[in-house]
Amino acid sequence: MLIAKVIGTTISTIKDPTLTGRKLLILRQADIDGVPFGKPYVAVDTLDAGVGDLVLTAHGSSGRQTEITKNRPVDAVIMAVIDHLEISNRVTYRKE
Amino acid sequence: MLIAKVIGTTISTIKDPTLTGRKLLILRQADIDGVPFGKPYVAVDTLDAGVGDLVLTAHGSSGRQTEITKNRPVDAVIMAVIDHLEISNRVTYRKE
Amino acid sequence: MLIAKVIGTTISTIKDPTLTGRKLLILRQADIDGVPFGKPYVAVDTLDAGVGDLVLTAHGSSGRQTEITKNRPVDAVIMAVIDHLEISNRVTYRKE
Amino acid sequence: MLIAKVIGTTISTIKDPTLTGRKLLILRQADIDGVPFGKPYVAVDTLDAGVGDLVLTAHGSSGRQTEITKNRPVDAVIMAVIDHLEISNRVTYRKE
Amino acid sequence: MLIAKVIGTTISTIKDPTLTGRKLLILRQADIDGVPFGKPYVAVDTLDAGVGDLVLTAHGSSGRQTEITKNRPVDAVIMAVIDHLEISNRVTYRKE
Repeated sequence: MLIAKVIGTTISTIKDPTLTGRKLLILRQADIDGVPFGKPYVAVDTLDAGVGDLVLTAHGSSGRQTEITKNRPVDAVIMAVIDHLEISNRVTYRKE
Repeated sequence: MLIAKVIGTTISTIKDPTLTGRKLLILRQADIDGVPFGKPYVAVDTLDAGVGDLVLTAHGSSGRQTEITKNRPVDAVIMAVIDHLEISNRVTYRKE
Repeated sequence: MLIAKVIGTTISTIKDPTLTGRKLLILRQADIDGVPFGKPYVAVDTLDAGVGDLVLTAHGSSGRQTEITKNRPVDAVIMAVIDHLEISNRVTYRKE
Repeated sequence: MLIAKVIGTTISTIKDPTLTGRKLLILRQADIDGVPFGKPYVAVDTLDAGVGDLVLTAHGSSGRQTEITKNRPVDAVIMAVIDHLEISNRVTYRKE
Repeated sequence: MLIAKVIGTTISTIKDPTLTGRKLLILRQADIDGVPFGKPYVAVDTLDAGVGDLVLTAHGSSGRQTEITKNRPVDAVIMAVIDHLEISNRVTYRKE
């Protein structure tokens, strides 16, 4: 899984019919302190995550192992919202 | 999923028999403002997307979870055409 | 899928028994004008492609969705030989 | 598989219901001497690994081939704790 | 598939129970002349390959399509030992 920050949303009228009502959020991978880096990617939200949240995303066929993404043409899913990250007994990120 | 811009088309006479009639478009990954970057890749179009459109592509086995790509040797599919992208309540891309 | 140029062949006596008789070609990813770049990789040929051909390769489990590669330990397949590539109505590559 | 060093832990209250009780550790890929490099990623621990351990992680659908990760939305798993690494008959890493 | 050179071995006492007796070798990707580059990765050996051999590795779910790796949490397998590589009718690598 990747640590990632939710930075925005995508709106699409024309899409695969199985994706109606699915929320597709824009994320950037983040470091252990929650600071994002790299290029944006898009994942399905299954947990009502919001912009600014630090989350974990699962990719590939693993992105389809939820009730909301099963058998759908999506390759990334938000499967956890991070409360805090701890590196060697030091908290490096804490949700506000 | 990746945000990507459709930049062209591929024409192939010799191909896997299951791909007859499938439209294989050339794309480049794009940023939140729709500006493409990086090297070209190819995805199956299932939504009648055209050159210039900003789309989302799903990859790997997820690229085969549509009626048009099921059980076929393809690893990327266009599964949404983007209307607009919004980052922190600011629209960064809007379809013309 | 990746646009790729066939640059050579691999010969192996010791291999998984299910691969006997399979042709394993060496490729490099190519740009929209057919010029190769990056490091070599290997894909199964199902279309009698030859050195110098520009092709499309499908990767991962998608590389196993052909009669020739099904259930075999291979992760890339040549599934189309490119006749020409067209970017914004301009032909950038044409097979000789 | 990747050689990786366990560097920390993630805590999430909101997560896919199938992940309750699963331990999600933070890792960084490591070299043959055990020195980590690159950006952090997260994998499910199935072996009671701890911070500081050098491990192997399997990715993608292979990350779901354990009793603990089966059918769950996770794409990486720790499937071995490394005792030592040997390069050309020289031990380059040994667990303390 | 990737062309790769076997450079070493991993030893693990604590591992997924389905991996008992499996040989996990360390490799680095190699160029058409057999010279390795990049960071090490680990693959299951199914062909009694040895340190110094140039091999092909298949990745992801394709790494599980052998008798030895089926249903196991491994994402890379050695599925061919290379005798020689030929680029445009020139032999660039030959096994000693």
